[in-house]
Amino acid sequence: MTHLFTLTELSITEINQLLDEAERFSKGGYWKATEPVFVANLFFEPSTRTKCSFEMAERKLGFHVIPFDADMSSVQKGETLYDTVRTLESIGVNAVVIRHSEDAYFEALRHSIRIPIINAGDGCGHHPTQSLLDLLTIRQEFGAFAGLTVAIIGDIRHSRVARSNAEVLTRLGAKVLFSSPEEWKDDANPYGMYVDIDTAVAEADVVMLLRIQHERHAEKMGLTKEQYHERYGLTLKRARKMKANSIILHPAPVNRDVEIASSLVESERSRIFKQMENGVYVRMAVLKRAIEGRMANGNYFEKWQVVQ
Amino acid sequence: MTHLFTLTELSITEINQLLDEAERFSKGGYWKATEPVFVANLFFEPSTRTKCSFEMAERKLGFHVIPFDADMSSVQKGETLYDTVRTLESIGVNAVVIRHSEDAYFEALRHSIRIPIINAGDGCGHHPTQSLLDLLTIRQEFGAFAGLTVAIIGDIRHSRVARSNAEVLTRLGAKVLFSSPEEWKDDANPYGMYVDIDTAVAEADVVMLLRIQHERHAEKMGLTKEQYHERYGLTLKRARKMKANSIILHPAPVNRDVEIASSLVESERSRIFKQMENGVYVRMAVLKRAIEGRMANGNYFEKWQVVQ
Amino acid sequence: MTHLFTLTELSITEINQLLDEAERFSKGGYWKATEPVFVANLFFEPSTRTKCSFEMAERKLGFHVIPFDADMSSVQKGETLYDTVRTLESIGVNAVVIRHSEDAYFEALRHSIRIPIINAGDGCGHHPTQSLLDLLTIRQEFGAFAGLTVAIIGDIRHSRVARSNAEVLTRLGAKVLFSSPEEWKDDANPYGMYVDIDTAVAEADVVMLLRIQHERHAEKMGLTKEQYHERYGLTLKRARKMKANSIILHPAPVNRDVEIASSLVESERSRIFKQMENGVYVRMAVLKRAIEGRMANGNYFEKWQVVQ
Repeated sequence: MTHLFTLTELSITEINQLLDEAERFSKGGYWKATEPVFVANLFFEPSTRTKCSFEMAERKLGFHVIPFDADMSSVQKGETLYDTVRTLESIGVNAVVIRHSEDAYFEALRHSIRIPIINAGDGCGHHPTQSLLDLLTIRQEFGAFAGLTVAIIGDIRHSRVARSNAEVLTRLGAKVLFSSPEEWKDDANPYGMYVDIDTAVAEADVVMLLRIQHERHAEKMGLTKEQYHERYGLTLKRARKMKANSIILHPAPVNRDVEIASSLVESERSRIFKQMENGVYVRMAVLKRAIEGRMANGNYFEKWQVVQ
Repeated sequence: MTHLFTLTELSITEINQLLDEAERFSKGGYWKATEPVFVANLFFEPSTRTKCSFEMAERKLGFHVIPFDADMSSVQKGETLYDTVRTLESIGVNAVVIRHSEDAYFEALRHSIRIPIINAGDGCGHHPTQSLLDLLTIRQEFGAFAGLTVAIIGDIRHSRVARSNAEVLTRLGAKVLFSSPEEWKDDANPYGMYVDIDTAVAEADVVMLLRIQHERHAEKMGLTKEQYHERYGLTLKRARKMKANSIILHPAPVNRDVEIASSLVESERSRIFKQMENGVYVRMAVLKRAIEGRMANGNYFEKWQVVQ
Repeated sequence: MTHLFTLTELSITEINQLLDEAERFSKGGYWKATEPVFVANLFFEPSTRTKCSFEMAERKLGFHVIPFDADMSSVQKGETLYDTVRTLESIGVNAVVIRHSEDAYFEALRHSIRIPIINAGDGCGHHPTQSLLDLLTIRQEFGAFAGLTVAIIGDIRHSRVARSNAEVLTRLGAKVLFSSPEEWKDDANPYGMYVDIDTAVAEADVVMLLRIQHERHAEKMGLTKEQYHERYGLTLKRARKMKANSIILHPAPVNRDVEIASSLVESERSRIFKQMENGVYVRMAVLKRAIEGRMANGNYFEKWQVVQ
C-alpha cells in the first residue's frame, strides 16, 4: 500500500524518487493513469493553499475529484472517520487526501482501508507534502542538502512543519538550527540545536520561518505584534545580515510584519511563492505514487473476518 | 417528463428496467449522452454518502457537475425553491438532484419545472434511490423478491426508507415484517406486520436495520445506548439465530453498537458496503433515464401564461 | 492586463465587442483555449445565480475549475485578499472571479496581481457582468440603445446594479429614469432623473426593478410588504399601463409580491429568466477576453522589487 502518512516512514531513496518526480513535473513532465481515477479531499480543518494545491495537482493529472464538504458530511451525525473513508472506498473513490485536527488520525485507518491515503496534515503531527515542497525548493537552489545549515524559527513546539522537516533534513545531511521563544522550545524534538535568532539568521543558508499558529500566542507572552516582530521575527535589519545566496522560506499563510517584515515576503531572497508552486509538483508526484502503487498491488487485501 | 420523486409512482416494469440498467452498469456497462450534460446537486440537508454517490455516478456518465452550496445560496435571502431551480434551468442545467427537509417539496415543482428532478430524500417522505439500491442488493443475492421475508427494524415511524421500501417490496411479492419500539410504530404504513425483534431476525431472509435518526430518541425513552442495543438492536447473540444465507442491510451512517453490533458491520452476512457500491449504479440508471427522457420529450412544455 | 473591474473603465467599443461575443455564444458559438485553463471563483458573499452562472460559463469553455470555499479558507486565519490571490496565482490558476463585500476591493490587487481578475460584485460598488447581461437582453429586444427609456426602480442608493447600469446606459445613448422612495435616492449618481413610479412605468421601454436588499429596509420605513408593493412596486395594475413592446427586468433573486407582483415574474413582458440565460453568455465572453488577453500579453510584469 502506498499511503503517505509521514516522511519518517520513507527511506532517503523514496524521498529522492519523489523529489525527482516532482522536478520532472515542474519541467512540464506528463503522466496519465491508464484508467479513470477518482479522488476525494477530506479537509476537516480550514486551508486555502494545501487544498487548492491538491485540487490543482489532481486536475493536472486528469483525475476526477469527488467534492467532499466536511461541514455537510455525516461526521456531523457522529460517523467515525473510518466509516466515512470506507464509504468513499465503497462508492469507487481510488484515493483520499485527509487533513484532520487529530494527531495521527491515520493510525485508525492504516491497516483497514484498502485505498491509498495521503496525509495533508494531522493535528500537531506531520505534514509530509509541506516538507517535500520545502525540500524541493531547497534542492532547486543548492543542488543538495549535505553541508547546508537550515534555521527553523518560531513556534517549534506546535509546528508540524518543524517536526517533519528537522528529522528529514538531518537525515539528508543538513545541519538544523532552532530559534524560538523559551515557551515554544520542544524538548521532544532532538534534531536541532537552539541558538538566538541573530545567530540563526546569520549562519543559515535557509531561513525557514514558521507561522504563529494563533495570534493570541504572542499576546499570552505579553508582547504586542511589534514587540514579537522585533525580538523573534525576520526584520529588515536582520535580513541584511543574511549570508550571500541564502534564501527565505515560510509555509504560509504569512502574518506580515509579525514573523517576517512585509516587504521581505516578495523580496529577492524569498522563495515563499516558489514553495507554493512547488507544492503542486510534489503533490502530483505523491498522487502518482499512490495510484501506481494501488494498481501494482491489486486487490491484495485480506478478506473480511467472519464474525459469528 | 422523467422526474423521480417516489417509487410509488413507478410501475413494476419501470422498477425492473432501472434495476436491469443498474446491473449492467455494475458489470462495467457504458453509456454516454449524445451532447454535453450539466447537472446540479441541491443538498439542503447534510449527507456524505448520498451526495458523494450521485457525484460519482454523474462523473462516471461524463456529466458536468455545477457546484451548488446550499449554505451560500440565495435561499438564505429568502428565495423559494422554485425560483432557485428555475434559475438553474435558465442557466442551462439539464437535471437537478434535490435533498430537502420538507416532505414532498417536489409538489411545488412537479408541473412547472421543465428539467428532470431526482429526489434524493424529502423530509420524512421518500428516498427512491435508497430503495432502489436496497432492491438491487437483494436481487443480486436472491435473484427475485417473491417469497422473501424482509424484516425492517427500528424507527419505522420517522424513516423514509421504511415507507418507500415496505410499499415496493410488498408490490414485488415479498413479505414485510416490522419490528420497533412501541413509540416508533407507524399506523399509517399498512405494508408490514409488527413482530418482536427476535422473531423478525429469525424469520427474515433480509434483516434491514434503520438508523436511529437522533440519538436523543433513545434517551427520550429513558434508555442508554447499551439498553437500546440489547432490546431493539442486532446483537451478536441475535445474529447467530439468523437463517442460512440471510443478509444484513443498513442505509448508513451506522450507529455502531446501537442498531447493530460493531463487529457485524463488516461481517460475512453484511451487505452494508455493497449497498453503497450499488448506490452508484442505481443512480447512474436513474440519471440516464432522466436525460434520455428529456431528450425524447423535447420542449413539450406549455408556453407561459400571459398575464395582463 | 484584461481585468474586468467596472464597466466605467471600458470604452463603448469594448462593451460592444463583449456583447457581440456573448451574442455569438448565445447562438452556439464555440471557442476553446489553446492550452488548459484553470480558474477559481472566490465568493465571499452568498450568491446562487452569479456563482452558478460563472461555473457554467467556465465549463462551457472547457476550463478546469479549482474549488475555493471562502468559509474554509485562510482568510479565516487573517490572510489578506492579496496573499490569497497571489497563492492561487502561484499554484497555477490562470484567472480568478471575485465577489467581496468591500467596495473596490480590487484596488489592492490591480497593480500587483499578474493574472486577470473578474469582478463579480464589490460591496455597494459595481457588478459589471450583471450590467452586461442587462445590456445584452435589452439589445436583443430593441437592437440598439439610443432613444430608449430605461426606468430603474427601487433602492437606487444601495444598488450596484443602479450605479453600473445608469452610467453605461447613458453613455450608450439611452435615457435613464430613476424612481425610489425618498430614503433611497442617491445624490451621488447623476445619470438619471427622478420621477414617480407611475410615470416611470408608463414611459419606459425597459422597466428595470431592483431587489430590496434587506427586507427590514421596508420595515424601517414603517411599511408592510403589502404597503411597499402598493406604493413602490410593479403591481398588476401598473403593469397594465406599460408601453407596447416594453419589457421587465430584475437582477434576481426576486422578492415576489414586493418589488413585483408574483404573477408578472413569468409573464410575457418579463425577461427575468432570459437575463439569467444571457448571464452565462456574457460571462463566457468576459472569460474569453481575460484568457486571450493574458496569452497575448505574456509575462509583461515588472520584476519584484529587491529589498535590502
